[in-house]
Amino acid sequence: MIRTTVLLLTLCALGFAQLATKKALTLEAAKKLAAAAEAEARKNNWNVVITILDEGGNPIYLERMDGTQVGSVDVALAKAKSAIFFKRPTKVFEDNLAAGRNGALKLPNALPVEGGLPLVLADGQFIGAVGVSGVTSAQDGIIAKAAVDALPTLKP
Amino acid sequence: MIRTTVLLLTLCALGFAQLATKKALTLEAAKKLAAAAEAEARKNNWNVVITILDEGGNPIYLERMDGTQVGSVDVALAKAKSAIFFKRPTKVFEDNLAAGRNGALKLPNALPVEGGLPLVLADGQFIGAVGVSGVTSAQDGIIAKAAVDALPTLKP
Amino acid sequence: MIRTTVLLLTLCALGFAQLATKKALTLEAAKKLAAAAEAEARKNNWNVVITILDEGGNPIYLERMDGTQVGSVDVALAKAKSAIFFKRPTKVFEDNLAAGRNGALKLPNALPVEGGLPLVLADGQFIGAVGVSGVTSAQDGIIAKAAVDALPTLKP
Amino acid sequence: MIRTTVLLLTLCALGFAQLATKKALTLEAAKKLAAAAEAEARKNNWNVVITILDEGGNPIYLERMDGTQVGSVDVALAKAKSAIFFKRPTKVFEDNLAAGRNGALKLPNALPVEGGLPLVLADGQFIGAVGVSGVTSAQDGIIAKAAVDALPTLKP
Repeated sequence: MIRTTVLLLTLCALGFAQLATKKALTLEAAKKLAAAAEAEARKNNWNVVITILDEGGNPIYLERMDGTQVGSVDVALAKAKSAIFFKRPTKVFEDNLAAGRNGALKLPNALPVEGGLPLVLADGQFIGAVGVSGVTSAQDGIIAKAAVDALPTLKP
Repeated sequence: MIRTTVLLLTLCALGFAQLATKKALTLEAAKKLAAAAEAEARKNNWNVVITILDEGGNPIYLERMDGTQVGSVDVALAKAKSAIFFKRPTKVFEDNLAAGRNGALKLPNALPVEGGLPLVLADGQFIGAVGVSGVTSAQDGIIAKAAVDALPTLKP
Repeated sequence: MIRTTVLLLTLCALGFAQLATKKALTLEAAKKLAAAAEAEARKNNWNVVITILDEGGNPIYLERMDGTQVGSVDVALAKAKSAIFFKRPTKVFEDNLAAGRNGALKLPNALPVEGGLPLVLADGQFIGAVGVSGVTSAQDGIIAKAAVDALPTLKP
Repeated sequence: MIRTTVLLLTLCALGFAQLATKKALTLEAAKKLAAAAEAEARKNNWNVVITILDEGGNPIYLERMDGTQVGSVDVALAKAKSAIFFKRPTKVFEDNLAAGRNGALKLPNALPVEGGLPLVLADGQFIGAVGVSGVTSAQDGIIAKAAVDALPTLKP
């Protein structure tokens, strides 16, 4: 019985927690990441929609720069949702398509067009995604990367 | 040639133009109106989603303040769309419902809940709408009004 | 300059964090909450669908007890989504309707039928929701409450 | 009376029944199959969504393991639905696509990605399907097969 008790105590000590702890974006953080993306867009004279979603795929922030095609609102949201729902850049799906793997065309919530990137902390935790749409998908991707590059500047 | 010039001037004066000129919100203006709404929300310790749509009902700007219920994203968008699609405050539909006129429940794109206001210039031109959701609908309406009140501060 | 430095240090010390920390349900926790709901259902010989969603409204767990009407799958999911998207029991919307406030019929993602409850920690943090459907909405609500009542038994 | 009995026996032997008898999964069976799949996933340190549908394509059970991408919920459901709606592994459609037969992209309810398997009794009766999503489609398929392999352990 002593052994069992010791075992149980050890198991508890090993931390079989039923509630996890995780980091989450604030609106202030989302604005900062979007500002980095917007700066990259302005530098190139590109007009785009920029959106930041949380870990569950729900919007925190969205802006449409002047002159951006209206359709880019839904495209940017879909790219960002795709990136966090599948924890990978949307370019992965675009590349799969280009390589003839067409299954992604039917995958629910997967938009196979570059411009959506997950936001991942240094410890590997996924905290959201950025979606950009308005210029070419490669250019959208460059702008989205500027938001990702700004992640380390966030105050923890 | 003098005659032609005279004719053209006369046509212009008579107003035969087939392309209209209208005012439109910029992203900078949308951010400024949203900031006024956010300041009002913070002053009251209220957490909400604030969105600004253009004249066509398409989003220019959206932000979700920390702690705001996720459902408010779609509600704020629906309120703002309702306000510009019908050129009236969403409270009008809410009041109609309260008075037993339930038709609004079937009206496409009409959300009968306070918190959506059209953005109207001094000359009567409708240029967009603000939608707010997160607290009570009356409180949402107070925040939305702060965006409307900031309209005269926009530089023409 | 010394004053400025002191001020800056003070501001940093006050914690202007841009990344929030929050608790999240694990699958083990979701199974435990659902088991408590299922036990309540079995005690009463009620057949229902029980679902547990995370904070973003995405499913972690769903079970349909033998003999439950198929339609209850989508209803349980919609109740739970409603409860976390609006951070309140779905009964609030049902009561609003009963009192003549019909606006909820048009509110996106709000299902005005009892049986959906948010999962809230003792510190006020919303970590998800439970949705139950299969018997009367009042009975669904009793089953959902059993899941909520099991929250304090979760190991942090 | 003897004649009547003979007649009835003859009718039965000729098989004129208008109501069929069929086997159906219980929630207990679904949990057991899912547990076999979860064990296979844990053995490999893979995080996935596992779902079990009934013969009509409606969910009996769904679980999302910790750390699984959110998008896998809808994908697992779609794979399982595809497997029972078409009484074949989803890999068949994936292989068709790979061979250039793109028709499956338009086929309603067919998801051409490995990881969905029908659940078939030894007598050839289809009683449901398992759907798995979260790792590569080949790995998803390995996990789904563990559920199928557990079928013979079900008590009739």
